[in-house]
Formats: sequence, C-alpha cells, structure tokens
Amino acid sequence: MSTTPATASTPAAMPAPDPTLRHRIAEATLTVRRPDGTPLVDAEVTLEQTRHAFAFGNIGFDFVGYANEETDADPDSPFGGASPAQAEHLADLWLDLFTTATLPFYWAGFEPERGRPDTARLRRAAQWFVDRGATVKGHPLAWHTLAPDWLRELSTDEVEAALRGRIRREVGDFAGVVDTWDAINEVVIMPVFSNEEHRNGITRLCWERGRIATIRLAFEEARAANPSATLVLNDFNLSSAYECLIEGVLEAGIAVDAIGLQSHMHQGYWGEERTLETLERFARFGLPLHLTESTLLSGDLMPPEIVDLNDYQVASWPTTPEGEERQAEEMVRHYRTLLSHPSVQAVTYWGLTDAGAWLGAPVGLVRADGTPKPSYDALHGLVKGEWWLRPTTARTDAEGRAAVRGFLGDYRIGVAGAGAASFALDSAGALTREVTLAP
Amino acid sequence: MSTTPATASTPAAMPAPDPTLRHRIAEATLTVRRPDGTPLVDAEVTLEQTRHAFAFGNIGFDFVGYANEETDADPDSPFGGASPAQAEHLADLWLDLFTTATLPFYWAGFEPERGRPDTARLRRAAQWFVDRGATVKGHPLAWHTLAPDWLRELSTDEVEAALRGRIRREVGDFAGVVDTWDAINEVVIMPVFSNEEHRNGITRLCWERGRIATIRLAFEEARAANPSATLVLNDFNLSSAYECLIEGVLEAGIAVDAIGLQSHMHQGYWGEERTLETLERFARFGLPLHLTESTLLSGDLMPPEIVDLNDYQVASWPTTPEGEERQAEEMVRHYRTLLSHPSVQAVTYWGLTDAGAWLGAPVGLVRADGTPKPSYDALHGLVKGEWWLRPTTARTDAEGRAAVRGFLGDYRIGVAGAGAASFALDSAGALTREVTLAP
Repeated sequence: MSTTPATASTPAAMPAPDPTLRHRIAEATLTVRRPDGTPLVDAEVTLEQTRHAFAFGNIGFDFVGYANEETDADPDSPFGGASPAQAEHLADLWLDLFTTATLPFYWAGFEPERGRPDTARLRRAAQWFVDRGATVKGHPLAWHTLAPDWLRELSTDEVEAALRGRIRREVGDFAGVVDTWDAINEVVIMPVFSNEEHRNGITRLCWERGRIATIRLAFEEARAANPSATLVLNDFNLSSAYECLIEGVLEAGIAVDAIGLQSHMHQGYWGEERTLETLERFARFGLPLHLTESTLLSGDLMPPEIVDLNDYQVASWPTTPEGEERQAEEMVRHYRTLLSHPSVQAVTYWGLTDAGAWLGAPVGLVRADGTPKPSYDALHGLVKGEWWLRPTTARTDAEGRAAVRGFLGDYRIGVAGAGAASFALDSAGALTREVTLAP
Repeated sequence: MSTTPATASTPAAMPAPDPTLRHRIAEATLTVRRPDGTPLVDAEVTLEQTRHAFAFGNIGFDFVGYANEETDADPDSPFGGASPAQAEHLADLWLDLFTTATLPFYWAGFEPERGRPDTARLRRAAQWFVDRGATVKGHPLAWHTLAPDWLRELSTDEVEAALRGRIRREVGDFAGVVDTWDAINEVVIMPVFSNEEHRNGITRLCWERGRIATIRLAFEEARAANPSATLVLNDFNLSSAYECLIEGVLEAGIAVDAIGLQSHMHQGYWGEERTLETLERFARFGLPLHLTESTLLSGDLMPPEIVDLNDYQVASWPTTPEGEERQAEEMVRHYRTLLSHPSVQAVTYWGLTDAGAWLGAPVGLVRADGTPKPSYDALHGLVKGEWWLRPTTARTDAEGRAAVRGFLGDYRIGVAGAGAASFALDSAGALTREVTLAP
C-alpha cells in the first residue's frame, strides 16, 4: 500500500501525518489577571508545563508489590516485575517520564480461586499511581490467554456469565481510579487459539458465540459498569484480519473508544514507512489509536521466523552497548513517527526495566542493575525536553497578555508576589485563554 | 486447532465430517406404478443416475469462443482458454465429468469500453452449457483485479454507481441462464491491494467505503436483479481475516448464500488435516461452502516463499509423469475429503486443460495435446464410478417396490414395455418415493 500524501483517492477526512507535530501544539495568547480581576500589565511571569495531554504510558507491573509493601517480586506477573527492592529507585525514573500506567488484571492471576479476586492489592497499586499524578489503565478484561483454569469445568453459558460478572465487578470496583480498560484482547486469534491442548473457557466461548458476540459482551458489561470509561479493543494482529474485525464490530454498533495496536518489536524496528502504513490502515476508522504495547530491544533481535513470540526461549538475552545505541535511536524515530499521526492518542511502552521482562528480552529503558540506558535519556529528551515547556519567563504587555507556545497539556503560571494559576492548553493552533492568579 | 470429533466444546449443530459420505447418499424405497396407476409387481426395472445434486464444477472459459463459432483463442481470458479447434474434443471430456460451468465476467474484459458489454457473446456461451444440461455460474460481479481502466477517471460516487449498474445489468440480463454468481471476490485484500501503482476504482471504493459496505452493495444489487440467485462471497484468503470479515458481514445482516473458498494449490496439496481444519473454521457460520477454485499441479510445485501466485512467472512449466501420478492421487484424496464434510455443496476445479492455463501451470486434467491425464480418469472414477449409479437392474416386489441406493441427484427408471420415469433422490438416508411410469 502506498503512503504517499493525500490525493483524490484519499478521503478528505483522513488525518495526514505531519512531522512538525503542529496538531499537538497550541499557540496561546494568555490574558493574565490579578486575584482582583485587573490585568497584570507589563510584568514578568514564569510559565511551565506540568503534564502532557498525550498519554505517555508504560506498564506499572513493577510497582504492584512495592505499593503493597511486599518484599518479593510478584510471582503472578509473567510480563514485567522487578523486585520491590528496586522499585523505589525505579519509581523516580517512571514518574519523571510517564503519565499513564498499565496495571495487570490477567484473570488467571487476579482470581486464581473463583470468588477470591485480588481487588484490594490492585486497588492499592492503582491508588499509588493516582496519588502521584498518573492515570491508570487496566489490562485486559477479556482474554483467552491467562484465563483461569476453573473456567474449563463450566458450560459455555456459565463461562459467559462468569466473564460478564468479572468484567462488571472489576470495572465497577475500580471506577474513578481506573477509567481506561483494554476491554478485550487479541480477538482475531481468540476462537482458533491452539497453543493449549484443549480449548480453554474463553477460547471456547469465542469459538461458539463468535468474535463479535464476545466483543459485544465485554464492551456491554464494561460500559454498563462505568459509562465514562475509555474502552479499548486491543490486538497484536495488525494484518487485514484486524481491519476486517474492526469493520464488523463497528457495523454491529459496538461503541469502541479506541483501537489498540500492540507493537512489540522483538524482531526489529518497523521503520517509519511500515509504521505510517499501519497507522493509515487503522486511522481510516476515525477512532483514536492507542499503541498499547511497544517494545524495542537493546540486544540481539529475535529471529524473523518466530511467529508466536512466546515460542522463543533463550537462557540469556543480554543488553549490549551497540544494541542500546540502536534502541535509543529507534526510540526517537518511533515516537516521532507515532506522534506525527494525529490519530495517535497514546503510546504505552511495555517495560521500564530489563529485570523480570517478558521472555527475558532486553526491552527496558533501564538495565537490570537499575541504570538508565541511552533510550531512557533519548525518550526523556523528547517528552520532557523538545516536547515540553520548562520554566520560562515572559513579560505581559500593556493589556496583560503573554504568549505561550507548547504541547497540549496542563500548565502553570507564577508571578512573584502576585500568585499563581493552572491552565490547560487543550486544542492545537491559535487560542486565547484568561488566567486569574490565586494568591 | 483440533480436528478431533465433537466434544462438549463443539456446538451440537456443527456438522462433522464423515468419510463414508452417508450424508450424501439416499436409501430409497420406490413404489413403481404403471401409467394406469397400478403397482408394477414382480418386474425387472432398470435404474440409473442421470445427474449429481452435488455441484462438480469446472471453468468453462475454453468454450466461450467455441460456442460463438470463433476460430482464435479468447484474447481476453487470463485464466484458461484453449483454442476453439480443441474445444469440440474437450467438450466431450468436460460434459462427461462436470455439472457446473464457471464463466468469466471479469469486468475489464466484459466491458473494456464503457457501455459496450460483451453480453451477447457470454449469453451464447452460457446457453451452450445450459443446452447440454450444465448449470452456469458467473464469476465475479465485483473484484478489484481486472477492473476496467475507465473507472480510474470517475469519482468514487460514480464508481459506486457504475458498479451497481454493472451488477444489476449482468444479473438481470442472465437471470434464468446464470443463477449463481460470485457476487464479490477477494474482499479481504480489496482495500489494501497494492500491486498497482495507483488504487484502481474498485480498490478506492472499498478503501473509502469499507469492505462491508462494498459487499453490501454487491449483494443488494444482485439480489434485487435476481431474487432467486445463489450469491457467493468468495476469497482466496482463508486465514482468520476471512473469518473476521464473514462475521462482520453476517452481523451486518447481509444475506450470503454460500461461502466461497478458493483453493489453488500451486504450492502443494494441503492434505486432509489442513483441509478439514479449514472447512471446520468456515462451516461454523452455518452456510454452505463452495470450494470455488481448486487446483492441483501435475508438475513442479511453486516455491513456498511466493505470496502472490501471480508473481511467479516461468518460461515453461511442463506436466511430468511423476507429477501426473501425484496429481491423480491427490485429486482423489482431496475430493474425498471435501465431500466428507456435510457443509460442502460445490467444488469447482479451475481448469480442464493445460492449454492456456493460468500462469502456464500444469493444473489441467487434460494435457495441452488433449489427452486426459491420470487425474481425469481418477476423478471420473469417483464422480461417474464409485459415486454414481450406472444402469442397474432390480426386481420389484409383490407391492411394486424396489430399493435404490445412490448419491443425491436425478435418476431414471425404465421398464421394458411399460415405460420410464425420472425421479430425484433429494435427501440423505431412508426415504420413500412413488414413481409413475410414462409410456
């Protein structure tokens, strides 16, 4: 498929990539008022960004034990999990770069024994992030992998009832703390998943009821339990199969809030062309895109012939100096490419540290010993550097106006002796805002 | 995926394969009456099958020129087309083995100049088959490949109108002669088809409107023009992508009469396991399955790394003695496997002769010189041998009853001096039929 610029054959409504990221930048004229309402004329103000509107995400699996004051690494997490001893140090690195934490709600680990869900522990972990200003996303409500064994004994009607109940319960229990969910994960493969000797409960449900019916029930239950939640349809299969599935889901009237695109790159960085081609194919549906599981290795790549990444098991998979340089460079290219597409609303990197990483792969931005890799610094250079407004002084004019240009997000203005205020830049391009200082 | 017999995890409604083909065989008790209505008691009767209910199909491209008394091979047919000089001989071979002819309605060839469709010529070809007792299927009404060049200049709305008009016209013009159509072909790849420098009209339509909307318009127009037509959704992509597409199409309420599964095996015979696994995945939707484009080579196989079969071009691709033996053996295995699945209603082999075959591949049942290969005889041995009731004598009992066991289809009974009659065996298992002889 071509990724050439829009022509007569491209619908006008289709957002086109723009490497200047203009679609993410506000050019605001602030009118600054004193607490009494009068304009703050000809005064020095300090402006600074406090948060990105764009969701720079990462998994928060490493902090579940820490937030619960546990001392051992989480035995139930197959995807990330540093020891709590490291977590304090890692927390600083996490919180300085990311805004959105994905927490693990894998059903098999969350409710290994029917009726005894791990709600309190996950709630403390979620609250830990919220208390530190982060947004929390739950992953995933429905998935055939890591389905609890006790589902196997149930009839398909009972599996459906159990799944509906579990979704209602988690989304309801966490509403207000976790308001974004991967409602259902990897449905393209779900009914024909064959890595187990017998179909598990969820695979069977999806085989018998169909993909769309299974998606519908997940979205229905989650929506009912938290009408304001952002519900994501998530998949690793980014082929035409997923396009076809999405078309059917939308035709069926299921309200999907965002399309989740996994992007584990254990077999090598996609490059700009493939990335944009993928975004173009999925942006076509007019929904926000969430890059839900992005990884780039800082060591040897997985051989290209591996189809299911889980099939690749090596004794040792070290990070290397050359790999770290490559990862840093690709990280910058990848985030630049993703943010250049107006449909992309969130990018979740899948792993902060190599310690306990999925498959033992060196995907982290931080080495297993806790030192940041070049990729951490490179991404930080974008997110908190090039794309961030550090504290900056400006002068208001004779009407109390000051200009501020910055990425969409939350900002703070402070004036020595006159107070401070917060404001948001929430739409790209030229805008005007009134800000009244509080003492 | 497992192909083990039905278990608790398989819906009861799912038809299971049965190598005895019991689901295709009637065990009938005929009560035979004389023209005056009295039972024909204790008399010798001759029973014979005259037609299969199962659609044993092949392309009829080789006979379009012949039926039109042309003397050159059809220059517009990229997929098959022996010279008319061979056609008389080939016709005997075709008509002795097959019941259903697929004729080419590729839009680019059918209407190369807008407003001048090849209707009269195709009508003579279709009528030629009907006159000889064959059923005719039209292929395909909508397809991005072989879309006319003149569509490129049109706006997308105009492309839609032209496509709707073309479908309405062909289906209406041929109603009663061609009542089965591939309504739309290869939609999984349609919007992202990239083998052309610019999107052609149909690719563009499907990209902008979506796959399901494009399928809907094709089925809508065809259905309106011939409400009793059998309309097939056809694809070569038999992966989960096609499953996902079908789910969406059915959720959208589009009335698909049969699911078409192409099965070109230029890269090697699938074998029974893969064939059954594929049938199982698509039988799940409860619709008849048509194996629309089956081929098995009698020469070297195409290398497995070729993805688009059209990319493989060789100067010479001969049929070989070993290849012919293999093809014959695989032909028998393949047809046995397909007929073992109750959902399969039609199999169309894609080519009678190697002369003019797609890609020059030795897919024919007949060599380019017109001599039948072992595969022809092997398939004939099933269709007109093992699965066919040759003229057989039986004796009616004291109530005028005779037993007949045979494949579903049309039959004839003849009684020396008392007349003859036709009857159908139209449901599997035990059944009773009354037959009144006509003098």
